[in-house]
Amino acid sequence: MGFMSMSFSSRTVTSLALALLALPACQHAKRSTTDRDASGGLTFALAIHGGAGTIDPSTPDQVFDRYRAALKAALTHGHDMLAGGASALDTCEAVVRLLEDEELFNAGKGAVFNAASEHELDASIMDGATLRCGAVAGVRTVRHPISLARKVMSETRHVLLAGDGAEVFADQAGVERVDNAWFDTPARKQALERLQQREQRDKRGAQAVPTDRRLDYGTVGCVALDQAGHLAAATSTGGMTGKRWGRIGDSPLLGAGNYADGFAAISCTGTGEEFIRHAIARSVTARMQFGGQTLEAAAHAEVFDVLKKGDGGLIAVDRSGKIAMPFNSTGMYRAAADSSGRFSVAIFGGEDEVGDGVQR
Amino acid sequence: MGFMSMSFSSRTVTSLALALLALPACQHAKRSTTDRDASGGLTFALAIHGGAGTIDPSTPDQVFDRYRAALKAALTHGHDMLAGGASALDTCEAVVRLLEDEELFNAGKGAVFNAASEHELDASIMDGATLRCGAVAGVRTVRHPISLARKVMSETRHVLLAGDGAEVFADQAGVERVDNAWFDTPARKQALERLQQREQRDKRGAQAVPTDRRLDYGTVGCVALDQAGHLAAATSTGGMTGKRWGRIGDSPLLGAGNYADGFAAISCTGTGEEFIRHAIARSVTARMQFGGQTLEAAAHAEVFDVLKKGDGGLIAVDRSGKIAMPFNSTGMYRAAADSSGRFSVAIFGGEDEVGDGVQR
Repeated sequence: MGFMSMSFSSRTVTSLALALLALPACQHAKRSTTDRDASGGLTFALAIHGGAGTIDPSTPDQVFDRYRAALKAALTHGHDMLAGGASALDTCEAVVRLLEDEELFNAGKGAVFNAASEHELDASIMDGATLRCGAVAGVRTVRHPISLARKVMSETRHVLLAGDGAEVFADQAGVERVDNAWFDTPARKQALERLQQREQRDKRGAQAVPTDRRLDYGTVGCVALDQAGHLAAATSTGGMTGKRWGRIGDSPLLGAGNYADGFAAISCTGTGEEFIRHAIARSVTARMQFGGQTLEAAAHAEVFDVLKKGDGGLIAVDRSGKIAMPFNSTGMYRAAADSSGRFSVAIFGGEDEVGDGVQR
Repeated sequence: MGFMSMSFSSRTVTSLALALLALPACQHAKRSTTDRDASGGLTFALAIHGGAGTIDPSTPDQVFDRYRAALKAALTHGHDMLAGGASALDTCEAVVRLLEDEELFNAGKGAVFNAASEHELDASIMDGATLRCGAVAGVRTVRHPISLARKVMSETRHVLLAGDGAEVFADQAGVERVDNAWFDTPARKQALERLQQREQRDKRGAQAVPTDRRLDYGTVGCVALDQAGHLAAATSTGGMTGKRWGRIGDSPLLGAGNYADGFAAISCTGTGEEFIRHAIARSVTARMQFGGQTLEAAAHAEVFDVLKKGDGGLIAVDRSGKIAMPFNSTGMYRAAADSSGRFSVAIFGGEDEVGDGVQR
């Protein structure tokens, strides 16, 4: 009878277990929960992106080598911080600061030019353990917008500061400022000129010229799970080449281009307006919270079922350390590492799967 | 046998119907779906708010009478538009324009003062049928920020424009501009002075003085379902009394303070930072989409389980015309009407339930 009872209950137990797994995720989970998923075993994990877009495969290998080297350096830094016990929040900020200083990417130094041949930078950061967050939009003279976003989070009662006001706060918070021209790079200047020539040729006016994602990819982001089981996300960008009228994209908008809670941390890159419209970052965690979906299923659904081909992609990590990096463009500069020894850098599709990542 | 078969199948049909209702909502529903819920029967519905906060019940009745009259006028206008076949989008814009011109509310004329004794206005609008949306933040000279948000939606490829750039666009789009002082009202000036006196007395500095929601309630919003089955949401605000550093709240952030899709339309009011942090507006529709929750359950959960007491409230309407207006503050200026003859205005809790709304 003991045997029969056990044999009978195995299916029941499975059903019960499934029900218990599904129910809390769907209805009752606390969003601030950071208990580790027993199935994982990973003690930390992080992912990085340097933008998604139409990447021309005929680009010389030397250029891709530079991107891979920059991603590898940032990944190494983040990996070593997490391995040493740093918080996800500190790691995300530090990694994004490195990427902001790298002129290959459209964030900080190397940011795209707006229609007035200037730079307007956006960034946000969020702590999944507490849901505290900070963001800045349209700042022109802050070397590391991600650190200003962190100060908004830690030193004000606000979440989002914009424009000149955010720079007054930067001085008060002791955040480094530079001349707007400090962000200039010849490549981004050429991209603006190409866009403006196209707009002049096109008699329908600037608004009718299709967005050319080749001209402004390079938003950067980092998501991390730390050894305390806390998640964080950070995103920084120069926005869209030739943007006008104080346009703000998804990167500084929590829930759109960046989000972290007790389920996952997400950083997005692509055509910002689409990520705002669909509230992509929050929708990924909402699928997990209310629909019981896995991180991979949730991230895949938002990128392939909700967004349109070419819109971009995202990086995400959940509380068990699982990483998802789906994108619907030809490529996404990305990198991932975790406590199991995973350490890879990739640009085009399929590189993660075939395992041709850079070795340390 | 016919009888038995019918009697047998009534439960089965109920179960099947419930399963069919639950499944698509949880996983498979298209967010742009606007098919009418067969259980409803309402052909249109709308709800309006004029802010939530700590409303002093000892306020003279004449003041409440003014609020009720203003809400009733806006509700009548919106009701008559929808009854006449106007779109939800046009109705939301028109109703919010009326509320922006009413100086009782913290939007347009009557907006609160920032720390520099000026006004910075935020607004957003969203079409649930197409997920098209537009928003403006930190505008200083636009009489009807909601109409500028509508122009961002209809005439640009962007979603959110901020600051001076948004005003350059306003001129191009032919949207009325006024002097910043046009928004001045004595009551809001006094609120700023009270706050500044308190900040001077409190040696811990401005950031440590607790937010006093009595000083800035009055954000306005409208959500509507039209006879074509389309949903829309619009929200407009002057933000927080004494705000500084270009602070942007939740009202212009789609997914935070305002959102509409094929499931519901939501407009929020309260301590903006909390609505951003929790992505409240999108979370309501996400609970319906991924969790199969009703509008009432979803809205109630966000306001009472996710937000803290005193944070504020929201108005929401779903595609069957059901309305939810939960708030966790002492009151929320609100009004609701639909095609069944419902027509009510309320301020404190319990007024909707006991039916003491204003009669037409």
